[in-house]
Amino acid sequence: MAREGRKGGRRGNADRAGTGIQQLPWRQAHNTYRPMEVVTSEQLEMIHDTSLRVLSEAGIRVMSPTVMDLFEGAGAIVDRDTMTIRIDAEIVDQALKTVPESFDMVARNPDKRITMGGTAMNFGLVAGPPNVHDMIGGRRQGNHADYVNFIKLAHHFNAVTMIGNQVCAPMEMPANQRHLDTYLANITYSDLTFHCTAIGRGRAMDGINMMAISRGITPEQMAETPGVITIISVNSPRLLDEAMTDGLTAMAEHMQPVTITPFTLMGAMTPVTLPAAMAQQNAEALFGVVLTQLVKPGAPVMYGAFTSNVDMKSGAPAFGTPENTKANIIAGQLARRYGIPYRTSNANASNTVDLQATYETMMSTWGAVLGGANLIYHAAGWMEGGLTASYEKFILDVEIIQNMTEFLRPIDFSEAELGLDAIKDVPTGGHFFGSPHTMERYETAFYKPLLSDWTNYENWLANGGHDALHRATALWQRALEEYQAPPMDLAVVEALDAYVARRREEIGTGEP
Amino acid sequence: MAREGRKGGRRGNADRAGTGIQQLPWRQAHNTYRPMEVVTSEQLEMIHDTSLRVLSEAGIRVMSPTVMDLFEGAGAIVDRDTMTIRIDAEIVDQALKTVPESFDMVARNPDKRITMGGTAMNFGLVAGPPNVHDMIGGRRQGNHADYVNFIKLAHHFNAVTMIGNQVCAPMEMPANQRHLDTYLANITYSDLTFHCTAIGRGRAMDGINMMAISRGITPEQMAETPGVITIISVNSPRLLDEAMTDGLTAMAEHMQPVTITPFTLMGAMTPVTLPAAMAQQNAEALFGVVLTQLVKPGAPVMYGAFTSNVDMKSGAPAFGTPENTKANIIAGQLARRYGIPYRTSNANASNTVDLQATYETMMSTWGAVLGGANLIYHAAGWMEGGLTASYEKFILDVEIIQNMTEFLRPIDFSEAELGLDAIKDVPTGGHFFGSPHTMERYETAFYKPLLSDWTNYENWLANGGHDALHRATALWQRALEEYQAPPMDLAVVEALDAYVARRREEIGTGEP
Repeated sequence: MAREGRKGGRRGNADRAGTGIQQLPWRQAHNTYRPMEVVTSEQLEMIHDTSLRVLSEAGIRVMSPTVMDLFEGAGAIVDRDTMTIRIDAEIVDQALKTVPESFDMVARNPDKRITMGGTAMNFGLVAGPPNVHDMIGGRRQGNHADYVNFIKLAHHFNAVTMIGNQVCAPMEMPANQRHLDTYLANITYSDLTFHCTAIGRGRAMDGINMMAISRGITPEQMAETPGVITIISVNSPRLLDEAMTDGLTAMAEHMQPVTITPFTLMGAMTPVTLPAAMAQQNAEALFGVVLTQLVKPGAPVMYGAFTSNVDMKSGAPAFGTPENTKANIIAGQLARRYGIPYRTSNANASNTVDLQATYETMMSTWGAVLGGANLIYHAAGWMEGGLTASYEKFILDVEIIQNMTEFLRPIDFSEAELGLDAIKDVPTGGHFFGSPHTMERYETAFYKPLLSDWTNYENWLANGGHDALHRATALWQRALEEYQAPPMDLAVVEALDAYVARRREEIGTGEP
Repeated sequence: MAREGRKGGRRGNADRAGTGIQQLPWRQAHNTYRPMEVVTSEQLEMIHDTSLRVLSEAGIRVMSPTVMDLFEGAGAIVDRDTMTIRIDAEIVDQALKTVPESFDMVARNPDKRITMGGTAMNFGLVAGPPNVHDMIGGRRQGNHADYVNFIKLAHHFNAVTMIGNQVCAPMEMPANQRHLDTYLANITYSDLTFHCTAIGRGRAMDGINMMAISRGITPEQMAETPGVITIISVNSPRLLDEAMTDGLTAMAEHMQPVTITPFTLMGAMTPVTLPAAMAQQNAEALFGVVLTQLVKPGAPVMYGAFTSNVDMKSGAPAFGTPENTKANIIAGQLARRYGIPYRTSNANASNTVDLQATYETMMSTWGAVLGGANLIYHAAGWMEGGLTASYEKFILDVEIIQNMTEFLRPIDFSEAELGLDAIKDVPTGGHFFGSPHTMERYETAFYKPLLSDWTNYENWLANGGHDALHRATALWQRALEEYQAPPMDLAVVEALDAYVARRREEIGTGEP
């Protein structure tokens, strides 16, 4: 599979303008509206104060002697027996001084540079599911062929601006080398930045090295403009595994961004109350942020949020709930308080691509957007609470992302757009279809949807009466047909192959 | 049909607590978050200034000599030949002085009083479709049996706080008396306020009289707390039909609220540009507002918005678009500028209850909520751009409304809710399921969904693997089974019957 696609890439990148699926052009989305606030500044300080008391009175357990040494050096109280680190406000404040408010990322296509921070918004491909699903082939275990398809789709649709961690696990490949295959697919079939797995130092370094090779630079040079990112999950409540801190350390040392995301499902990993959940999330996120700055002051880091609730009847996670939506907004208020770029998600908990999947995704997406998120992770393709990557959901999500970015596009208020003369020129009860003001603008006046069908009922029925799910199936198939791999120099292809071959040998049956 | 239901009502209103479909209790929803602003205050003034120039330079055509007299008396420039009325800023400002910022409405159940204005939010049943649809019976012409079913559903679900104009037209009944049948059904099968048809004076007066009878008061007494509302549609661009102004006049004279809603689809009834569309909407809405105050200073009136775009390929209306979403928010900025309660809608343009219907509805709903709408009209059951009332869409919309109202519910920030001790009490890597803090709260901690299914994939599949559309069908059927009519005094039943009988005779084959 991989060889074919890469050859295809070298055959060139024919002009597709006008012939393919209609979509928005590549652009950095910006959210210039005032972010929403669902808690007052006093309430925000209550969350902050509570989280600092969690850090100083309860602390975080970290399974790494190296990290304990680092924190001890910074003045933390370290209990070696329980591996618990307690820090005070001063240590937090000190670290926050060196956190960059914004950073850029780029892969091998300089035109697809993205910004994490300020008003910039980015949307990542779903990450982590063990399964994949489409309406033709049904539900199946993750595999390399589907993995490649999703990378092609992410490359094809401009709405997706970053590849998350393993869109699905290629289960047929050895678990200890799988990251090499997925990195290679990311780099070959797309020109987007990607998430590299930071479970241990080896996997993180492989991602850093391979991205640097693809850009024709050294990992040291890549420190200037990062090319990969990772998510460090806190094993909530208040636990950081050693593999996680090792991965974090490797990334921060090389100035590649780390997103600290506590896994805080209310009722399970935090108390059931939203203020407590936010306080715990904040404590855990700040702790990780501090760690990045202890490893390397100035290292790029993001404030990650994943606070939702569980179904208290079954313990099952729920997403896109009113509580999740509020949490997405409050987390944005917190991230801005500290001046840290903000990552959250727009998940849903439905088992199939249906009304529930859609309204839950819209709830969490609006929460993320109104919260001023710089990165919406899992933004395209997430199903079953993260257990399945769905082709049809991917298409649905691209439509949702396009709707949101168009909603966020500023409005032109020139005199011509205010259109007083145009209004006066059409008689009462008349229409504007043929007016010169309309004729000059009608082709670009409105957002043209990807998935919506606006024909009337009779025509819709005559055309087959297909609902949006059915149309989504046709769209991802067509996109895969239209897909063209981004070109890559033969020297880069060879260098990547050589790197992967060497690393496969080194890893053997051991851990990377 | 009607007799059965009404007898059912008189049999009493058994306690349904805990036995029926789980839903949120009846309450006035409030949106206490700061409304969103997508245009600056300078841009808002540009819209305002342009709209005043539309009113003073182009004017509005009104097909009513009475209205021309009224405006002439107020200092407007009236061209009797073209029936065009031009007004200046002074006339507008004068009228705005007497517009109430907020008003209450109530039907025959004093516990279901609603507020239109301030932070209050209300959700109306879909209004006006010629067709109905459900997944069992398919698509069919509107009829009285379906009409009654929808009123029962609106009464059953607390999410719906008002009945809009004819949820579907009962086509088998004479068009000139149909309003009597639908009013009677509204009053019999629900205890909600409703929209009365204001196409001409007769239909408006019948609504006012019948609501007053059901409350056991006179129409004069009902002026204090209105019981019915109407929408006066402007036949955009810039045209008000005589039947509309007659209906408006009857309502305003009796201090029953009128919503002035320009029918402004960009590209068809307005220019394609959003600033121009908003300026035209604003001109037409303000004109109607002024008319209400000329009829009766202090008459309750709402600023109505219905600005969306058409599909420029086909001319078909589109809803839930990014442009529609922005328009919903800008209209709220305008309504607040003038201190007028604000009505908008959350429409979609899908031909079936699918992903498109859901994301478009969510776009327009969020626009309405973020715009600070006091009344979201068509909020439950709207399909096919308004041509069909859908049972399954009704259930979907109730879920969406419940999600939004829960999202808007303020968060308790007491010390117990901040939960520092609860966080500290659970060991690192542990869980909160059994903690006392959780146990005290878990039953009410989170919103319990109506339609969402949060079981895991295997259990969901074992339970039949039904998607949300399928579950919605089961839910409306169950709701109709559980429905209980609100009780009504026999004297009121008889008085209503007598009124309807007399009016049928009076109307005969003529116009009401």
